[in-house]
Amino acid sequence: MSENKKTNIILFSGEYDKAMAAYIIANGAAAYDHDVTIFHTFWGLNALRKDEKLRPQKSFMEKIFGKMMPHGAKNLPLSKMNFAGIGPKMIKSVMKKHNAMPVEDLIDMAKEQDVTLLACTMTMDLLGIKQEELMDGLEYGGVAAYIAEGEDGAVNLFI
Amino acid sequence: MSENKKTNIILFSGEYDKAMAAYIIANGAAAYDHDVTIFHTFWGLNALRKDEKLRPQKSFMEKIFGKMMPHGAKNLPLSKMNFAGIGPKMIKSVMKKHNAMPVEDLIDMAKEQDVTLLACTMTMDLLGIKQEELMDGLEYGGVAAYIAEGEDGAVNLFI
Amino acid sequence: MSENKKTNIILFSGEYDKAMAAYIIANGAAAYDHDVTIFHTFWGLNALRKDEKLRPQKSFMEKIFGKMMPHGAKNLPLSKMNFAGIGPKMIKSVMKKHNAMPVEDLIDMAKEQDVTLLACTMTMDLLGIKQEELMDGLEYGGVAAYIAEGEDGAVNLFI
Repeated sequence: MSENKKTNIILFSGEYDKAMAAYIIANGAAAYDHDVTIFHTFWGLNALRKDEKLRPQKSFMEKIFGKMMPHGAKNLPLSKMNFAGIGPKMIKSVMKKHNAMPVEDLIDMAKEQDVTLLACTMTMDLLGIKQEELMDGLEYGGVAAYIAEGEDGAVNLFI
Repeated sequence: MSENKKTNIILFSGEYDKAMAAYIIANGAAAYDHDVTIFHTFWGLNALRKDEKLRPQKSFMEKIFGKMMPHGAKNLPLSKMNFAGIGPKMIKSVMKKHNAMPVEDLIDMAKEQDVTLLACTMTMDLLGIKQEELMDGLEYGGVAAYIAEGEDGAVNLFI
Repeated sequence: MSENKKTNIILFSGEYDKAMAAYIIANGAAAYDHDVTIFHTFWGLNALRKDEKLRPQKSFMEKIFGKMMPHGAKNLPLSKMNFAGIGPKMIKSVMKKHNAMPVEDLIDMAKEQDVTLLACTMTMDLLGIKQEELMDGLEYGGVAAYIAEGEDGAVNLFI
Protein backbone atom coordinates (compact mmCIF):
# COMPACT_ATOMS: atom_id res chain seq x y z
CA MET A 1 0.00 0.00 0.00
CA SER A 2 1.25 3.42 -0.93
CA GLU A 3 2.52 5.78 1.75
CA ASN A 4 1.59 8.79 -0.34
CA LYS A 5 -1.08 11.22 0.78
CA LYS A 6 -4.37 10.92 -1.04
CA THR A 7 -6.51 13.53 -2.77
CA ASN A 8 -10.04 12.47 -3.76
CA ILE A 9 -12.23 14.74 -5.80
CA ILE A 10 -15.87 14.09 -6.58
CA LEU A 11 -16.65 15.91 -9.81
CA PHE A 12 -20.45 16.19 -9.76
CA SER A 13 -20.79 19.38 -11.80
CA GLY A 14 -20.86 19.53 -15.57
CA GLU A 15 -19.41 22.97 -16.16
CA TYR A 16 -16.17 23.89 -17.88
CA ASP A 17 -14.88 26.13 -15.09
CA LYS A 18 -15.60 23.54 -12.38
CA ALA A 19 -14.00 20.71 -14.38
CA MET A 20 -11.01 23.03 -14.88
CA ALA A 21 -10.76 23.65 -11.11
CA ALA A 22 -11.02 19.91 -10.40
CA TYR A 23 -8.29 19.00 -12.88
CA ILE A 24 -5.95 21.83 -11.84
CA ILE A 25 -6.19 20.71 -8.19
CA ALA A 26 -5.77 17.06 -9.24
CA ASN A 27 -2.68 17.80 -11.31
CA GLY A 28 -1.27 20.01 -8.56
CA ALA A 29 -1.77 17.31 -5.93
CA ALA A 30 -0.24 14.68 -8.22
CA ALA A 31 2.80 16.94 -8.69
CA TYR A 32 3.11 16.89 -4.88
CA ASP A 33 3.15 13.08 -4.98
CA HIS A 34 -0.41 12.55 -3.81
CA ASP A 35 -2.32 9.54 -5.05
CA VAL A 36 -5.20 11.28 -6.77
CA THR A 37 -8.64 10.00 -7.75
CA ILE A 38 -11.36 11.95 -9.53
CA PHE A 39 -14.74 10.31 -9.12
CA HIS A 40 -16.98 11.51 -11.98
CA THR A 41 -20.64 11.34 -11.06
CA PHE A 42 -23.88 12.84 -12.39
CA TRP A 43 -23.11 15.77 -14.76
CA GLY A 44 -19.37 15.35 -14.10
CA LEU A 45 -19.45 12.33 -16.41
CA ASN A 46 -20.00 14.65 -19.38
CA ALA A 47 -16.35 15.73 -19.21
CA LEU A 48 -15.40 12.14 -20.12
CA ARG A 49 -17.75 11.67 -23.07
CA LYS A 50 -16.27 11.19 -26.50
CA ASP A 51 -16.95 13.93 -29.01
CA GLU A 52 -18.29 11.47 -31.54
CA LYS A 53 -21.68 10.38 -32.71
CA LEU A 54 -22.08 6.82 -31.48
CA ARG A 55 -25.32 4.92 -31.70
CA PRO A 56 -25.47 2.41 -28.87
CA GLN A 57 -28.80 0.73 -28.20
CA LYS A 58 -30.75 3.10 -25.92
CA SER A 59 -34.22 3.61 -24.58
CA PHE A 60 -36.19 6.71 -25.58
CA MET A 61 -35.37 8.55 -22.34
CA GLU A 62 -31.69 7.58 -22.53
CA LYS A 63 -31.56 9.02 -26.04
CA ILE A 64 -32.97 12.33 -24.79
CA PHE A 65 -30.43 12.57 -21.98
CA GLY A 66 -27.70 11.54 -24.41
CA LYS A 67 -28.59 14.30 -26.85
CA MET A 68 -29.07 17.07 -24.32
CA MET A 69 -25.87 16.55 -22.35
CA PRO A 70 -22.54 17.88 -23.64
CA HIS A 71 -20.07 15.54 -25.33
CA GLY A 72 -16.71 15.97 -23.65
CA ALA A 73 -14.79 18.64 -21.78
CA LYS A 74 -14.50 21.10 -24.62
CA ASN A 75 -18.27 21.32 -25.03
CA LEU A 76 -19.10 22.10 -21.40
CA PRO A 77 -20.86 25.38 -20.52
CA LEU A 78 -19.69 27.86 -17.85
CA SER A 79 -21.28 28.00 -14.37
CA LYS A 80 -21.33 31.82 -14.60
CA MET A 81 -21.64 34.21 -17.54
CA ASN A 82 -22.32 31.40 -20.00
CA PHE A 83 -24.32 33.73 -22.29
CA ALA A 84 -25.59 30.96 -24.53
CA GLY A 85 -22.09 29.66 -25.17
CA ILE A 86 -20.23 32.96 -25.67
CA GLY A 87 -18.76 32.82 -22.14
CA PRO A 88 -16.83 29.57 -22.75
CA LYS A 89 -15.43 31.03 -25.97
CA MET A 90 -14.26 34.13 -24.08
CA ILE A 91 -12.64 32.06 -21.34
CA LYS A 92 -10.91 29.83 -23.87
CA SER A 93 -9.68 32.88 -25.75
CA VAL A 94 -8.05 34.39 -22.64
CA MET A 95 -6.73 30.97 -21.65
CA LYS A 96 -5.05 30.62 -25.03
CA LYS A 97 -3.57 34.10 -24.73
CA HIS A 98 -2.10 33.21 -21.34
CA ASN A 99 -0.95 29.75 -22.47
CA ALA A 100 -3.28 28.12 -19.93
CA MET A 101 -4.16 24.51 -20.73
CA PRO A 102 -7.70 23.74 -21.91
CA VAL A 103 -9.53 21.09 -19.87
CA GLU A 104 -8.97 18.39 -22.52
CA ASP A 105 -5.22 18.84 -22.06
CA LEU A 106 -5.55 18.94 -18.26
CA ILE A 107 -7.29 15.54 -18.48
CA ASP A 108 -4.47 14.14 -20.62
CA MET A 109 -1.93 15.52 -18.15
CA ALA A 110 -3.81 13.89 -15.27
CA LYS A 111 -3.67 10.53 -17.05
CA GLU A 112 0.06 10.93 -17.61
CA GLN A 113 0.46 11.64 -13.88
CA ASP A 114 -1.46 8.44 -13.06
CA VAL A 115 -4.49 10.22 -11.64
CA THR A 116 -7.26 7.62 -11.38
CA LEU A 117 -10.31 8.69 -13.38
CA LEU A 118 -13.27 6.85 -11.96
CA ALA A 119 -16.66 6.85 -13.70
CA CYS A 120 -19.74 6.37 -11.52
CA THR A 121 -21.53 3.23 -12.72
CA MET A 122 -24.78 4.17 -10.97
CA THR A 123 -25.00 7.40 -12.98
CA MET A 124 -24.11 5.57 -16.19
CA ASP A 125 -26.89 3.10 -15.53
CA LEU A 126 -29.37 5.85 -14.67
CA LEU A 127 -28.67 8.13 -17.63
CA GLY A 128 -27.99 5.30 -20.05
CA ILE A 129 -24.34 6.14 -20.72
CA LYS A 130 -22.37 3.20 -22.14
CA GLN A 131 -18.63 2.54 -21.64
CA GLU A 132 -18.07 2.88 -25.40
CA GLU A 133 -19.28 6.51 -25.19
CA LEU A 134 -16.60 7.44 -22.65
CA MET A 135 -12.90 8.01 -23.23
CA ASP A 136 -10.39 5.19 -22.75
CA GLY A 137 -8.31 4.62 -19.64
CA LEU A 138 -11.09 4.96 -17.06
CA GLU A 139 -11.93 2.87 -14.04
CA TYR A 140 -15.51 2.11 -13.09
CA GLY A 141 -17.18 1.95 -9.69
CA GLY A 142 -19.93 3.13 -7.40
CA VAL A 143 -20.21 4.85 -4.04
CA ALA A 144 -18.36 1.98 -2.31
CA ALA A 145 -15.31 2.67 -4.51
CA TYR A 146 -15.46 6.32 -3.52
CA ILE A 147 -15.77 5.67 0.24
CA ALA A 148 -12.85 3.21 0.10
CA GLU A 149 -10.62 5.98 -1.31
CA GLY A 150 -12.20 8.94 0.43
CA GLU A 151 -11.89 7.65 3.99
CA ASP A 152 -8.10 7.81 3.73
CA GLY A 153 -7.99 11.12 1.88
CA ALA A 154 -5.87 14.02 3.11
CA VAL A 155 -7.87 16.25 0.79
CA ASN A 156 -11.50 15.38 -0.07
CA LEU A 157 -13.49 17.77 -2.21
CA PHE A 158 -16.94 17.81 -3.80
CA ILE A 159 -16.97 20.00 -6.91
CA MET B 1 -16.38 8.14 22.15
CA SER B 2 -16.85 6.11 19.02
CA GLU B 3 -13.84 4.65 17.23
CA ASN B 4 -15.63 4.74 13.90
CA LYS B 5 -14.51 7.00 11.09
CA LYS B 6 -16.64 10.06 10.53
CA THR B 7 -18.25 11.45 7.40
CA ASN B 8 -19.67 14.97 7.63
CA ILE B 9 -21.62 16.45 4.77
CA ILE B 10 -22.80 20.05 4.59
CA LEU B 11 -25.86 20.10 2.35
CA PHE B 12 -26.12 23.75 1.32
CA SER B 13 -27.80 23.26 -2.06
CA GLY B 14 -31.51 22.86 -2.59
CA GLU B 15 -31.55 20.73 -5.70
CA TYR B 16 -32.85 17.19 -6.11
CA ASP B 17 -29.70 15.83 -7.76
CA LYS B 18 -27.40 17.33 -5.12
CA ALA B 19 -29.57 16.07 -2.24
CA MET B 20 -29.51 12.67 -3.94
CA ALA B 21 -25.70 12.72 -4.13
CA ALA B 22 -25.46 13.77 -0.46
CA TYR B 23 -27.75 10.99 0.73
CA ILE B 24 -26.18 8.29 -1.46
CA ILE B 25 -22.74 9.15 -0.06
CA ALA B 26 -24.16 9.31 3.48
CA ASN B 27 -25.82 5.92 3.18
CA GLY B 28 -22.71 4.45 1.56
CA ALA B 29 -20.47 5.75 4.36
CA ALA B 30 -22.91 4.49 7.01
CA ALA B 31 -22.82 1.05 5.38
CA TYR B 32 -19.03 1.17 5.85
CA ASP B 33 -19.57 1.86 9.57
CA HIS B 34 -18.83 5.55 9.46
CA ASP B 35 -20.58 7.86 11.92
CA VAL B 36 -22.35 10.15 9.46
CA THR B 37 -23.79 13.63 9.92
CA ILE B 38 -25.56 15.71 7.29
CA PHE B 39 -25.68 19.37 8.27
CA HIS B 40 -28.55 21.00 6.35
CA THR B 41 -28.01 24.71 5.88
CA PHE B 42 -29.44 27.43 3.62
CA TRP B 43 -31.37 25.85 0.71
CA GLY B 44 -30.41 22.37 1.93
CA LEU B 45 -33.07 22.74 4.63
CA ASN B 46 -35.77 22.52 1.96
CA ALA B 47 -35.14 18.77 1.68
CA LEU B 48 -36.38 18.42 5.26
CA ARG B 49 -39.58 20.48 4.97
CA LYS B 50 -42.89 18.74 5.39
CA ASP B 51 -45.10 18.60 2.33
CA GLU B 52 -48.03 20.12 4.23
CA LYS B 53 -49.60 23.51 4.46
CA LEU B 54 -48.85 24.70 7.97
CA ARG B 55 -49.58 28.23 9.13
CA PRO B 56 -47.12 29.15 11.83
CA GLN B 57 -46.94 32.81 12.88
CA LYS B 58 -44.58 34.50 10.40
CA SER B 59 -43.50 37.95 9.34
CA PHE B 60 -44.30 39.15 5.82
CA MET B 61 -40.82 38.36 4.52
CA GLU B 62 -40.78 34.94 6.18
CA LYS B 63 -44.07 34.13 4.46
CA ILE B 64 -42.58 35.03 1.08
CA PHE B 65 -39.53 32.81 1.64
CA GLY B 66 -41.81 30.09 2.97
CA LYS B 67 -43.98 30.13 -0.14
CA MET B 68 -41.20 30.35 -2.69
CA MET B 69 -39.02 27.56 -1.34
CA PRO B 70 -39.82 23.91 -2.11
CA HIS B 71 -41.56 21.76 0.51
CA GLY B 72 -39.54 18.58 0.95
CA ALA B 73 -37.22 16.40 -1.10
CA LYS B 74 -39.70 15.34 -3.71
CA ASN B 75 -40.42 18.92 -4.73
CA LEU B 76 -36.81 20.01 -5.30
CA PRO B 77 -35.71 21.20 -8.77
CA LEU B 78 -32.68 19.89 -10.68
CA SER B 79 -29.37 21.82 -10.79
CA LYS B 80 -29.14 21.12 -14.55
CA MET B 81 -31.79 20.64 -17.19
CA ASN B 82 -34.62 21.55 -14.87
CA PHE B 83 -36.79 22.79 -17.76
CA ALA B 84 -39.47 24.30 -15.52
CA GLY B 85 -39.93 21.07 -13.63
CA ILE B 86 -39.85 18.56 -16.51
CA GLY B 87 -36.23 17.56 -15.74
CA PRO B 88 -37.05 16.22 -12.25
CA LYS B 89 -39.94 14.20 -13.70
CA MET B 90 -37.59 12.70 -16.30
CA ILE B 91 -34.98 11.81 -13.70
CA LYS B 92 -37.59 10.26 -11.42
CA SER B 93 -38.97 8.27 -14.34
CA VAL B 94 -35.55 6.75 -15.18
CA MET B 95 -34.86 6.21 -11.47
CA LYS B 96 -38.08 4.25 -11.13
CA LYS B 97 -37.25 2.19 -14.20
CA HIS B 98 -33.85 1.32 -12.69
CA ASN B 99 -35.27 0.72 -9.22
CA ALA B 100 -33.19 3.59 -7.83
CA MET B 101 -34.49 5.04 -4.58
CA PRO B 102 -36.08 8.50 -4.66
CA VAL B 103 -34.54 11.02 -2.25
CA GLU B 104 -37.43 10.68 0.24
CA ASP B 105 -36.57 6.99 0.60
CA LEU B 106 -32.84 7.73 0.81
CA ILE B 107 -33.61 10.04 3.74
CA ASP B 108 -35.63 7.30 5.47
CA MET B 109 -32.79 4.85 4.87
CA ALA B 110 -30.31 7.32 6.37
CA LYS B 111 -32.46 7.62 9.50
CA GLU B 112 -32.62 3.84 9.81
CA GLN B 113 -28.80 3.73 9.55
CA ASP B 114 -28.55 6.32 12.37
CA VAL B 115 -27.22 9.09 10.16
CA THR B 116 -27.54 12.31 12.16
CA LEU B 117 -29.66 14.87 10.31
CA LEU B 118 -28.76 18.27 11.65
CA ALA B 119 -30.79 21.39 10.79
CA CYS B 120 -28.98 24.73 10.85
CA THR B 121 -30.68 26.93 13.43
CA MET B 122 -29.15 30.13 12.04
CA THR B 123 -30.77 29.50 8.65
CA MET B 124 -34.08 28.61 10.28
CA ASP B 125 -33.97 31.87 12.20
CA LEU B 126 -33.02 33.86 9.12
CA LEU B 127 -35.59 32.42 6.73
CA GLY B 128 -38.29 32.04 9.38
CA ILE B 129 -38.51 28.22 9.24
CA LYS B 130 -40.08 26.70 12.37
CA GLN B 131 -39.32 23.24 13.82
CA GLU B 132 -42.94 22.21 13.23
CA GLU B 133 -42.42 22.72 9.49
CA LEU B 134 -39.56 20.21 9.35
CA MET B 135 -39.72 16.42 9.47
CA ASP B 136 -39.36 14.55 12.78
CA GLY B 137 -36.16 12.99 14.07
CA LEU B 138 -33.82 15.92 13.42
CA GLU B 139 -31.16 17.49 15.60
CA TYR B 140 -30.65 21.24 15.71
CA GLY B 141 -27.45 23.26 15.85
CA GLY B 142 -25.30 26.00 14.37
CA VAL B 143 -21.79 26.32 12.97
CA ALA B 144 -20.26 25.25 16.31
CA ALA B 145 -22.06 21.90 16.05
CA TYR B 146 -20.65 21.47 12.56
CA ILE B 147 -17.06 22.31 13.49
CA ALA B 148 -17.21 19.92 16.48
CA GLU B 149 -18.06 17.06 14.08
CA GLY B 150 -16.14 18.23 11.06
CA GLU B 151 -12.76 18.57 12.70
CA ASP B 152 -12.65 14.81 13.30
CA GLY B 153 -14.06 13.87 9.92
CA ALA B 154 -12.33 11.38 7.63
CA VAL B 155 -14.52 12.66 4.82
CA ASN B 156 -15.82 16.26 4.87
CA LEU B 157 -17.84 17.51 1.92
CA PHE B 158 -19.73 20.71 1.03
CA ILE B 159 -22.52 19.96 -1.41
CA MET C 1 4.82 25.00 13.14
CA SER C 2 1.43 25.45 14.73
CA GLU C 3 -0.20 22.54 16.55
CA ASN C 4 -3.65 23.90 15.77
CA LYS C 5 -6.04 22.04 13.51
CA LYS C 6 -6.43 23.49 10.05
CA THR C 7 -9.51 24.43 8.06
CA ASN C 8 -8.99 25.17 4.37
CA ILE C 9 -11.82 26.48 2.25
CA ILE C 10 -11.68 26.93 -1.50
CA LEU C 11 -14.17 29.66 -2.39
CA PHE C 12 -14.78 29.11 -6.10
CA SER C 13 -18.34 30.46 -6.27
CA GLY C 14 -19.23 34.09 -6.70
CA GLU C 15 -22.58 34.18 -4.93
CA TYR C 16 -23.52 36.07 -1.79
CA ASP C 17 -25.02 33.08 0.01
CA LYS C 18 -22.04 30.84 -0.73
CA ALA C 19 -19.54 33.52 0.34
CA MET C 20 -21.61 33.91 3.50
CA ALA C 21 -21.45 30.15 4.19
CA ALA C 22 -17.68 30.14 3.58
CA TYR C 23 -17.03 33.04 5.94
CA ILE C 24 -19.37 31.77 8.67
CA ILE C 25 -17.57 28.40 8.67
CA ALA C 26 -14.18 30.16 8.57
CA ASN C 27 -15.04 32.40 11.52
CA GLY C 28 -16.51 29.45 13.42
CA ALA C 29 -13.41 27.34 12.88
CA ALA C 30 -11.15 30.27 13.87
CA ALA C 31 -13.17 30.64 17.08
CA TYR C 32 -12.32 26.97 17.77
CA ASP C 33 -8.61 27.79 17.35
CA HIS C 34 -8.21 26.34 13.89
CA ASP C 35 -5.68 27.90 11.53
CA VAL C 36 -7.99 28.90 8.71
CA THR C 37 -7.26 29.71 5.07
CA ILE C 38 -9.77 30.75 2.43
CA PHE C 39 -8.39 30.28 -1.07
CA HIS C 40 -10.35 32.57 -3.41
CA THR C 41 -10.34 31.28 -6.96
CA PHE C 42 -12.36 31.91 -10.12
CA TRP C 43 -15.62 33.76 -9.26
CA GLY C 44 -14.73 33.64 -5.55
CA LEU C 45 -12.26 36.45 -6.19
CA ASN C 46 -15.17 38.83 -6.77
CA ALA C 47 -15.85 38.90 -3.01
CA LEU C 48 -12.45 40.57 -2.58
CA ARG C 49 -12.79 43.26 -5.24
CA LYS C 50 -12.88 46.87 -4.16
CA ASP C 51 -16.11 48.72 -4.76
CA GLU C 52 -14.32 51.51 -6.63
CA LYS C 53 -13.82 52.43 -10.24
CA LEU C 54 -10.13 51.85 -10.91
CA ARG C 55 -8.64 52.04 -14.36
CA PRO C 56 -5.64 49.75 -14.53
CA GLN C 57 -4.20 49.02 -17.96
CA LYS C 58 -6.22 46.14 -19.38
CA SER C 59 -6.77 44.32 -22.63
CA PHE C 60 -10.19 44.49 -24.30
CA MET C 61 -11.23 41.06 -22.97
CA GLU C 62 -10.01 41.87 -19.48
CA LYS C 63 -12.10 45.04 -19.51
CA ILE C 64 -15.19 43.03 -20.41
CA PHE C 65 -14.62 40.53 -17.59
CA GLY C 66 -13.85 43.43 -15.25
CA LYS C 67 -17.12 45.18 -16.04
CA MET C 68 -19.34 42.13 -15.94
CA MET C 69 -18.12 40.69 -12.67
CA PRO C 70 -19.40 42.07 -9.33
CA HIS C 71 -17.21 44.47 -7.32
CA GLY C 72 -16.99 43.14 -3.78
CA ALA C 73 -19.04 41.04 -1.40
CA LYS C 74 -21.99 43.39 -1.11
CA ASN C 75 -22.63 43.30 -4.86
CA LEU C 76 -22.73 39.51 -5.23
CA PRO C 77 -25.91 37.81 -6.52
CA LEU C 78 -27.69 34.87 -4.83
CA SER C 79 -27.28 31.27 -6.06
CA LYS C 80 -31.07 30.76 -5.69
CA MET C 81 -33.99 33.15 -6.01
CA ASN C 82 -31.82 35.99 -7.24
CA PHE C 83 -34.73 37.56 -9.18
CA ALA C 84 -32.58 40.14 -10.96
CA GLY C 85 -31.13 41.41 -7.71
CA ILE C 86 -34.27 41.48 -5.55
CA GLY C 87 -33.32 38.23 -3.77
CA PRO C 88 -30.08 39.67 -2.29
CA LYS C 89 -32.03 42.71 -1.04
CA MET C 90 -34.57 40.41 0.63
CA ILE C 91 -31.85 38.31 2.28
CA LYS C 92 -30.03 41.42 3.50
CA SER C 93 -33.28 42.81 4.86
CA VAL C 94 -33.97 39.67 6.96
CA MET C 95 -30.29 39.51 7.97
CA LYS C 96 -30.49 43.07 9.28
CA LYS C 97 -33.70 42.28 11.15
CA HIS C 98 -32.00 39.30 12.83
CA ASN C 99 -28.76 41.20 13.49
CA ALA C 100 -26.87 38.77 11.23
CA MET C 101 -23.60 40.15 9.87
CA PRO C 102 -23.41 41.04 6.18
CA VAL C 103 -20.59 39.32 4.26
CA GLU C 104 -18.43 42.48 4.25
CA ASP C 105 -18.44 42.38 8.06
CA LEU C 106 -17.79 38.63 8.12
CA ILE C 107 -14.69 39.29 5.99
CA ASP C 108 -13.49 41.97 8.42
CA MET C 109 -14.11 39.60 11.32
CA ALA C 110 -12.13 36.88 9.57
CA LYS C 111 -9.18 39.26 9.14
CA GLU C 112 -9.34 40.15 12.82
CA GLN C 113 -9.26 36.45 13.67
CA ASP C 114 -6.14 36.02 11.47
CA VAL C 115 -7.87 33.95 8.83
CA THR C 116 -5.55 33.87 5.82
CA LEU C 117 -7.26 35.26 2.72
CA LEU C 118 -5.46 33.87 -0.28
CA ALA C 119 -6.11 35.18 -3.80
CA CYS C 120 -5.50 32.77 -6.70
CA THR C 121 -2.85 34.32 -8.94
CA MET C 122 -3.70 32.07 -11.87
CA THR C 123 -7.28 33.38 -11.93
CA MET C 124 -6.07 36.97 -11.56
CA ASP C 125 -3.78 36.45 -14.53
CA LEU C 126 -6.51 34.80 -16.59
CA LEU C 127 -9.27 37.34 -15.92
CA GLY C 128 -6.94 40.33 -15.83
CA ILE C 129 -7.55 41.24 -12.17
CA LYS C 130 -4.77 43.41 -10.70
CA GLN C 131 -3.68 43.48 -7.02
CA GLU C 132 -4.72 47.16 -6.79
CA GLU C 133 -8.31 46.12 -7.56
CA LEU C 134 -8.48 43.79 -4.56
CA MET C 135 -8.81 44.68 -0.88
CA ASP C 136 -5.74 45.04 1.32
CA GLY C 137 -4.36 42.36 3.62
CA LEU C 138 -4.44 39.46 1.16
CA GLU C 139 -1.86 36.80 0.39
CA TYR C 140 -1.25 35.61 -3.14
CA GLY C 141 -0.59 32.13 -4.47
CA GLY C 142 -1.53 29.34 -6.84
CA VAL C 143 -2.56 25.72 -6.59
CA ALA C 144 0.75 24.79 -4.92
CA ALA C 145 -0.07 27.15 -2.04
CA TYR C 146 -3.45 25.47 -1.69
CA ILE C 147 -2.10 21.90 -1.69
CA ALA C 148 0.54 22.85 0.90
CA GLU C 149 -2.21 23.94 3.29
CA GLY C 150 -4.91 21.51 2.23
CA GLU C 151 -2.92 18.32 2.73
CA ASP C 152 -2.77 19.00 6.49
CA GLY C 153 -6.37 20.18 6.79
CA ALA C 154 -8.75 18.69 9.35
CA VAL C 155 -11.58 20.28 7.38
CA ASN C 156 -11.22 20.86 3.61
CA LEU C 157 -14.17 22.27 1.71
CA PHE C 158 -14.85 23.40 -1.86
CA ILE C 159 -17.61 26.00 -1.95
